[in-house]
Amino acid sequence: MIQIFVTGGTFDKTYDEIGGRLSFRDTHLNEMLRLGRARVPVHVRTLMMVDSLDMRDVDRDVVVHNCMQAEESQIVITHGTDTMVETAAALARAVVGKTVVLTGAMIPYAFGSSDGLFNLGSALSLVQVLPPGVYIAMNGQHFRWDAVRKNRDTGVFEAV
Amino acid sequence: MIQIFVTGGTFDKTYDEIGGRLSFRDTHLNEMLRLGRARVPVHVRTLMMVDSLDMRDVDRDVVVHNCMQAEESQIVITHGTDTMVETAAALARAVVGKTVVLTGAMIPYAFGSSDGLFNLGSALSLVQVLPPGVYIAMNGQHFRWDAVRKNRDTGVFEAV
Amino acid sequence: MIQIFVTGGTFDKTYDEIGGRLSFRDTHLNEMLRLGRARVPVHVRTLMMVDSLDMRDVDRDVVVHNCMQAEESQIVITHGTDTMVETAAALARAVVGKTVVLTGAMIPYAFGSSDGLFNLGSALSLVQVLPPGVYIAMNGQHFRWDAVRKNRDTGVFEAV
Amino acid sequence: MIQIFVTGGTFDKTYDEIGGRLSFRDTHLNEMLRLGRARVPVHVRTLMMVDSLDMRDVDRDVVVHNCMQAEESQIVITHGTDTMVETAAALARAVVGKTVVLTGAMIPYAFGSSDGLFNLGSALSLVQVLPPGVYIAMNGQHFRWDAVRKNRDTGVFEAV
Repeated sequence: MIQIFVTGGTFDKTYDEIGGRLSFRDTHLNEMLRLGRARVPVHVRTLMMVDSLDMRDVDRDVVVHNCMQAEESQIVITHGTDTMVETAAALARAVVGKTVVLTGAMIPYAFGSSDGLFNLGSALSLVQVLPPGVYIAMNGQHFRWDAVRKNRDTGVFEAV
Repeated sequence: MIQIFVTGGTFDKTYDEIGGRLSFRDTHLNEMLRLGRARVPVHVRTLMMVDSLDMRDVDRDVVVHNCMQAEESQIVITHGTDTMVETAAALARAVVGKTVVLTGAMIPYAFGSSDGLFNLGSALSLVQVLPPGVYIAMNGQHFRWDAVRKNRDTGVFEAV
Repeated sequence: MIQIFVTGGTFDKTYDEIGGRLSFRDTHLNEMLRLGRARVPVHVRTLMMVDSLDMRDVDRDVVVHNCMQAEESQIVITHGTDTMVETAAALARAVVGKTVVLTGAMIPYAFGSSDGLFNLGSALSLVQVLPPGVYIAMNGQHFRWDAVRKNRDTGVFEAV
Repeated sequence: MIQIFVTGGTFDKTYDEIGGRLSFRDTHLNEMLRLGRARVPVHVRTLMMVDSLDMRDVDRDVVVHNCMQAEESQIVITHGTDTMVETAAALARAVVGKTVVLTGAMIPYAFGSSDGLFNLGSALSLVQVLPPGVYIAMNGQHFRWDAVRKNRDTGVFEAV
């Protein structure tokens, strides 16, 4: 069984047609798993629905705490890309003996042209085979939490 | 460097609007890698464009031969689902010391509702971490070539 | 109130993922009206679900009969493009005092890249403003039933 | 020949993946005409790329001036929905002897679930058949400029 924690991020941004702006409603994760015809058993739980630029320490504590408490040893977290590395670092300090893979998207899934489904396929596969540790899966690549940074100019995650 | 071999299958079926039927033209693979914002270095080569029900032994030999000759030790093959297991078996008999991951789709990528992008994310990630051997990646799961069959009634790949 | 009759055609073709071929299931029309946020009152009724190449005289009679019996004087018909002109001619011989607009698609709606939604917007608008008669609305154009043919080589409807 | 003037609005909003927000780049109009397989001859000209809430009197003057100067007597304008009625009123005061149809979208075209293509099909058809005047085409309906308002709560255009 794989635990999936949803925290928001671009991945789950949607268009509020009355307000004319991006907003968060429900996660698209279950729809994405259905589209991917995923047959691997998962628990999905939404922890929060925030832009990762708005994620505070107290929010990050919620993510860490939930990963620590989870019965599953394989955990995928959907997360905004801007502070994904910070959350990964917080997880690495506290979570032991589990494989945690963070992923996200550069374009909202609700847009036709999203990278979200590709990244979810990556993360869900990697969490089943990587040894315990905290990883980031983006751009068809994966990195240990302490060996990656997001290049803000290009939007690409790079090895450091 | 990862070698990607394209063989056709549902993955790459497209709609021929003059003839009003499904057909094959060019592969969608490069477009999908772009959509997924993949940054892992790949070679893409189209070996054939066939429905896997129409794949003959001589076609399968072409796939095997190309995998044997490839310089890369990480190979992804996009393939129709109906005979994916047969091709995997043929590869397992001939290719040694390489990680080969076959994947495909139940719905053409050109349809909005395809599982292809999800599966490509899976396969491209798995080929980087699995030990040498021949595998099938579908439905968010992966199987050794000799431990899987396609359930023709449900369209799902299952462990045997 | 506008009456919409569904007869199938490329418009409503879908992909049968078990059989790996195009087929018909339910119409996508209600979903399309929802997507278009249409607020014009409509009745939707599926008369048949056929490729228009398979439409026989008896099927065409069903379409004609339903248009004659309809209480509404504004009727949209979704129809395969290959014999749309034949059905329009049959309607013109029998239906009087009503505005009937036939439309269809070159690419199934279920594909992301369909012209179906564009054509439905056209047809639904034209049926509200054109004088009684039988028309074909395709390619952002509209034609009287006796002033159009489908160019089979290009897939485009042309004035004759 | 139909003149199409682009002014921005939700219709053409796109997602800026570096900034993580909605923005304007090039119009999607030509791509939409291609998708709709439109064969009606058009001129497309982008006048501005603004959210209609940010449209000032001076911008509205540009729209009016261009419609007055246009050689074509059939004009479609893509426009944000929030002040579409105001621009329609300004046009009605100045433009005579031409059919002008304003349209837009509640969801950006770049999202898969947009009403834009449906509305474009409507507007492009209506402009060819309606008598001279200024109209708004949304929700599968059309209204004279002085007989409509946008309901801000529901996002729907209604007769007044």
